[in-house]
Amino acid sequence: MTTAKWNWIWIRICRLALSILLVLCVAAAEAPVGYRREICEHRKGRPMQPTNMYRSRLLAMREQMLIRATLEGPEIYGYILPSTDEHLNQEVAVRDQRLHYLSGYTGNRAVAAVTQGGAAIWLEKRFVQQADGELDCDWQIFLADGNVSIASWLGSQVRMNKRIGADPQLVPHHLWLTWERELADKFLKLIKININLVDMIWGSERPETPKHHVIQVQARDFAGEKWEDKVTELRRRLAHLNCDAMIITSLTEIAYLFNIRGTDIPYTPVVKSFAIVSQKDIFFYVDHGKISLGIDLHLRTDCYNDLCVRIKEYKHIWSDIRTYVQIWRRILVPAPCVQEPGASEAIYSAVPANVVVEHISPIIFMRAQKNSEEQEGMRLAHIRDAAAICEAMSNLEARFDTEQWTEEKIKYEVELWLLSQTHAKGLSLRTVIAYGEHSALPYYISNNLTDIEVSDQSLLVIESGVQYLEGTTDMSRTFIFGEPTRDMKRAYTAVLAGILHISDLIFPASVKPSGLDSVVRAKVWHEMTDYPQATGHGIGAYGSVEEPPISVAYGQNNSFHFKQGYFFSSESGYYKRDDYGVRIKNVLEVLDTGKTTTSGEHFLAFQSVTLVPYEPKLIDGTMLSSDEKRMLNRYNAKIRKYIGAELKRLGNMKAFYWMMNKTRHVREYLTEDEYLAAMGGGCQSYHHAQLPLLALTMVMMILLAFIHSKWQL
Amino acid sequence: MTTAKWNWIWIRICRLALSILLVLCVAAAEAPVGYRREICEHRKGRPMQPTNMYRSRLLAMREQMLIRATLEGPEIYGYILPSTDEHLNQEVAVRDQRLHYLSGYTGNRAVAAVTQGGAAIWLEKRFVQQADGELDCDWQIFLADGNVSIASWLGSQVRMNKRIGADPQLVPHHLWLTWERELADKFLKLIKININLVDMIWGSERPETPKHHVIQVQARDFAGEKWEDKVTELRRRLAHLNCDAMIITSLTEIAYLFNIRGTDIPYTPVVKSFAIVSQKDIFFYVDHGKISLGIDLHLRTDCYNDLCVRIKEYKHIWSDIRTYVQIWRRILVPAPCVQEPGASEAIYSAVPANVVVEHISPIIFMRAQKNSEEQEGMRLAHIRDAAAICEAMSNLEARFDTEQWTEEKIKYEVELWLLSQTHAKGLSLRTVIAYGEHSALPYYISNNLTDIEVSDQSLLVIESGVQYLEGTTDMSRTFIFGEPTRDMKRAYTAVLAGILHISDLIFPASVKPSGLDSVVRAKVWHEMTDYPQATGHGIGAYGSVEEPPISVAYGQNNSFHFKQGYFFSSESGYYKRDDYGVRIKNVLEVLDTGKTTTSGEHFLAFQSVTLVPYEPKLIDGTMLSSDEKRMLNRYNAKIRKYIGAELKRLGNMKAFYWMMNKTRHVREYLTEDEYLAAMGGGCQSYHHAQLPLLALTMVMMILLAFIHSKWQL
Repeated sequence: MTTAKWNWIWIRICRLALSILLVLCVAAAEAPVGYRREICEHRKGRPMQPTNMYRSRLLAMREQMLIRATLEGPEIYGYILPSTDEHLNQEVAVRDQRLHYLSGYTGNRAVAAVTQGGAAIWLEKRFVQQADGELDCDWQIFLADGNVSIASWLGSQVRMNKRIGADPQLVPHHLWLTWERELADKFLKLIKININLVDMIWGSERPETPKHHVIQVQARDFAGEKWEDKVTELRRRLAHLNCDAMIITSLTEIAYLFNIRGTDIPYTPVVKSFAIVSQKDIFFYVDHGKISLGIDLHLRTDCYNDLCVRIKEYKHIWSDIRTYVQIWRRILVPAPCVQEPGASEAIYSAVPANVVVEHISPIIFMRAQKNSEEQEGMRLAHIRDAAAICEAMSNLEARFDTEQWTEEKIKYEVELWLLSQTHAKGLSLRTVIAYGEHSALPYYISNNLTDIEVSDQSLLVIESGVQYLEGTTDMSRTFIFGEPTRDMKRAYTAVLAGILHISDLIFPASVKPSGLDSVVRAKVWHEMTDYPQATGHGIGAYGSVEEPPISVAYGQNNSFHFKQGYFFSSESGYYKRDDYGVRIKNVLEVLDTGKTTTSGEHFLAFQSVTLVPYEPKLIDGTMLSSDEKRMLNRYNAKIRKYIGAELKRLGNMKAFYWMMNKTRHVREYLTEDEYLAAMGGGCQSYHHAQLPLLALTMVMMILLAFIHSKWQL
Repeated sequence: MTTAKWNWIWIRICRLALSILLVLCVAAAEAPVGYRREICEHRKGRPMQPTNMYRSRLLAMREQMLIRATLEGPEIYGYILPSTDEHLNQEVAVRDQRLHYLSGYTGNRAVAAVTQGGAAIWLEKRFVQQADGELDCDWQIFLADGNVSIASWLGSQVRMNKRIGADPQLVPHHLWLTWERELADKFLKLIKININLVDMIWGSERPETPKHHVIQVQARDFAGEKWEDKVTELRRRLAHLNCDAMIITSLTEIAYLFNIRGTDIPYTPVVKSFAIVSQKDIFFYVDHGKISLGIDLHLRTDCYNDLCVRIKEYKHIWSDIRTYVQIWRRILVPAPCVQEPGASEAIYSAVPANVVVEHISPIIFMRAQKNSEEQEGMRLAHIRDAAAICEAMSNLEARFDTEQWTEEKIKYEVELWLLSQTHAKGLSLRTVIAYGEHSALPYYISNNLTDIEVSDQSLLVIESGVQYLEGTTDMSRTFIFGEPTRDMKRAYTAVLAGILHISDLIFPASVKPSGLDSVVRAKVWHEMTDYPQATGHGIGAYGSVEEPPISVAYGQNNSFHFKQGYFFSSESGYYKRDDYGVRIKNVLEVLDTGKTTTSGEHFLAFQSVTLVPYEPKLIDGTMLSSDEKRMLNRYNAKIRKYIGAELKRLGNMKAFYWMMNKTRHVREYLTEDEYLAAMGGGCQSYHHAQLPLLALTMVMMILLAFIHSKWQL
């Protein structure tokens, strides 16, 4: 061979090697690694796992991606499935738990993606451990706010220019746009698949809506306003926005507007339905099976004027929208607002761009300002709630030493007491019972997999909420059964001080909620720590536990202001990793002080409607000013008055005494001894110089008595 | 006549009457009434006032509007004249005081408008009384934030479709756009008049720039950085923004960038100039008369590489811009940023729209983060400043009873002491001395017309600032020479508590400045009062007393964050109308604590560099927690250390003892007596039950002594 030929061969070999290396590198770089699943690593190399239920569902899904999706065009190579339902709820009905059906995962706030070669799920950190236990080894786990986005994972799984499908009914419009953009960056195309592929597999096994899920009327005594007046007010606001009609997709907004409640969704008392309100008509799209005669009368379905509701079948919304967009010129479609995700991509794509008016739902602002009946109801609900916690905790403390307790067992007990109160219709959130290192996790939710024993060594965080007919509650408290360490007391008192300060705050109405966050956090920050949650969010009246538009969080650019009659929860926390955590949450009511600034702006104030005792064992009195202790005493006096009366009414004297014990008056004034000890005892010697003097006086007095007696002799 | 004819006449008469009525109504509705000028109402109906200097200038101006303006097109019927100069400064050089020349008004922050039939001025409330005294009766006075805008006044004065002129060099681009839009609503057209009409009248009488106004080099010891390094950093940031060049219009930015200072403007040590920095060139447009050999050397004007400055005549900027816009593709033109108005309309209209990049000047962020020499300088400047205030106040207190004092006389004294300190180059703001009801005006500035006598009955607010070579100071304190009322103490202590709290605050770096406002205001709000000023704004190092980007104000949507090395002033106030006011202002430095949150965010803290004593007579110790008193004592200890040393160095022992007296240690601990008295004495009886016991003990001891002596006999 000539040298030239050799050279040519060498060059070829080098090129080949280089390309192999390149391909390997790219492959290595492109395969995102998720949460390390130990159990799955253990199984690797073992003989093939037996085909279980979830594995066969995954295979069926992949088949659907190739077959069914093609009804609407060519096949898809990836499918994105969120855990939400058509109304973008996070907690969904059993028949909408599609992600659970496909994967076995029972948590929420998750999105899954399936390709022909892989399956992955994105979820919040607090659900990772649970997901690891529940999911098959076919599934990779990623953090929702981690480095690997859904688009980048799909980009590594699917070749360029392929189609990725998703159900537009389950995805908020704005999220859809984000996914579309991100996938386009990976040269993938996001396609609307209007048939839900999970429903195809699920078939006849998919549960029906339980027959007892009928609609209940929310009585005038609780709602405070007729639904007709609410609709009239909504129409006025729509006219002001120059809109002919509005499509209502949020279940809590429909429940509020029509004064109806239901049991279709866990934790929130709503009816799965759509509504369209125009200046002339009211359409209510709901499963006819849920309608009773009472509802027909309540919603006035038999008449034909502009304040009569016309009930239509749930699915007819889609054909109706297509009809009405030809009549109406401007239709309001809900935009996102703080916690509210707005309407789904399916709604947005049903309304032509020249007709759609993307705007925050006016119902949000009507609902946030509670009327006087709702205000009264909210206060009453919180009194019942506090009484239930006192009953549960006093019972727990009494039995603590004689039984063995775990987080799940305490949760069961607490929920039992909560749900046994008058008018309690269900929980408003997943109850959190977090002990020890679990209390140090800001978003921990206990479950059978993470359950641990509760002893008297560390802190126990309880977070719970109940749906009463009168209102929704949401609170958090931290307790200890044994004796706390100095550090625990320091942390608890710092958290408590912030809650005391915000409850006592007076401020001009134009101050933004985010501008008040520093009042709550200042003392926690001073300990060089911060908590990741928002300090506050609005709360409904027998509605959602997280209601827009209020959000108190320093990172947010939220420009909605507090108004008299708003209710919101305000929490503060302290989390010491792997050790303990503190969380306190109260629901506050916004009051108008009646006073104004020189420029005529109203001064608002807050009032705590949550009346659950704090843990006095955890309060370091030397860390609080007498002002702060006065606030605490005022709060305790209020608890003794209202919760005392309620517990007496319930006849639970054990809980009554427990409550009285926890809310004893704290001495506001600090004695000099206590003060000096708190200061670290640096100047204590100066003070103790007075002791000999005292002793001397006493000796002298004894002497006097002695002499006196002698003299008299 | 036929009935038809009569009818026709009637209709005509009715129509005529209606139109007259309509015209009258419109005229009545359209004539805006400004501030009621009593002296002028008195003069009405009197024989014509004699023609004075300002009246003839106004007539000359009206003539110019018809003649000169026509050089650039048809005549104009209205002319708008702001009080600013070409660099949009509020305080301007004598030769730029065009509004003063035209009207006689000596205040600032004003805009005038002149038509053939009228003249009006818009100013802030605090200047109204002064303007009323200074302005001729030809002038109407309106509030800048009042009901009558410039456009609506012009609309009432000038017929539709007429032209209104203004000098585009004196108006910020964004304000120009607003005026243009508002005038268009009144069917008027805003026209750029590039010849300033006042300059035309002023002619040869217009003062020249004083000959001694040469440029001074800001030495490396004070500036801390070479100007070449600053230019290099600026170029890096411009490259990052993909800009070829930047036009620098802010005088303080030019002074910072080139390490030069001047005396062209009152209160701010700057040189009237423009600069253009491109990736290759540095052009400096300035009056050649201000250049000395030292400046030539400092700015390296003799070389030809990219770090040599080319000095050009001030006016050549305009022709140069026109040349360079043909070479450069993207030119950064400063956008507004908090207090900074951005570039003028003239600059914006000189750069074609396809070349202009409207962006906040990168120099703002480079300058805000002071280097270690600047930090040290700021601290030193504030020590000198505090010493001067101690000297002035101790002197004043000593002479108070023997002399008669007015606000102006105190101002003279205070300024004398301030300017006699080492390296004091001038004042940084108009000194405020406000006594009694004047102290209740948040923006009061004393002058000869408003001057009142100062007695020992009410509060005296002092606000002052000095330009030292090392840094700029700005502080405010409230004093009383007599004894304060309980209410005064309450107000002062509420204000002080806010200042103590912000100085002690620790917070994560991502918290917005506006989010910290509630920490300062909470106690003032609690008294159902608020103050209209922003709580805080950045401050320069031998630069401007109000420097972007920091602004602490709850109404603002400012998203610039604090960084280590930032300096800003933080003030709080309490204003009781027609009675008294309290104001306290400190300059704070931003420190990095070195600690981070779990998400890796830095915790920042503040440190007060202002070290002027508070007024102990005005502090109600029972309103402060021991924590707050501890902060106060720490601050007082720092004053004793640093200001004590400085006063000793100055040899002013009178001021030293005054300072020691004002900064005495406050007992942090409250005795039970004091505590109960502060609580309103509700529980006092319980406490005083101990008194008889004490008396008894004493009686017994005397008895013992007596018996003892008797026994020994």
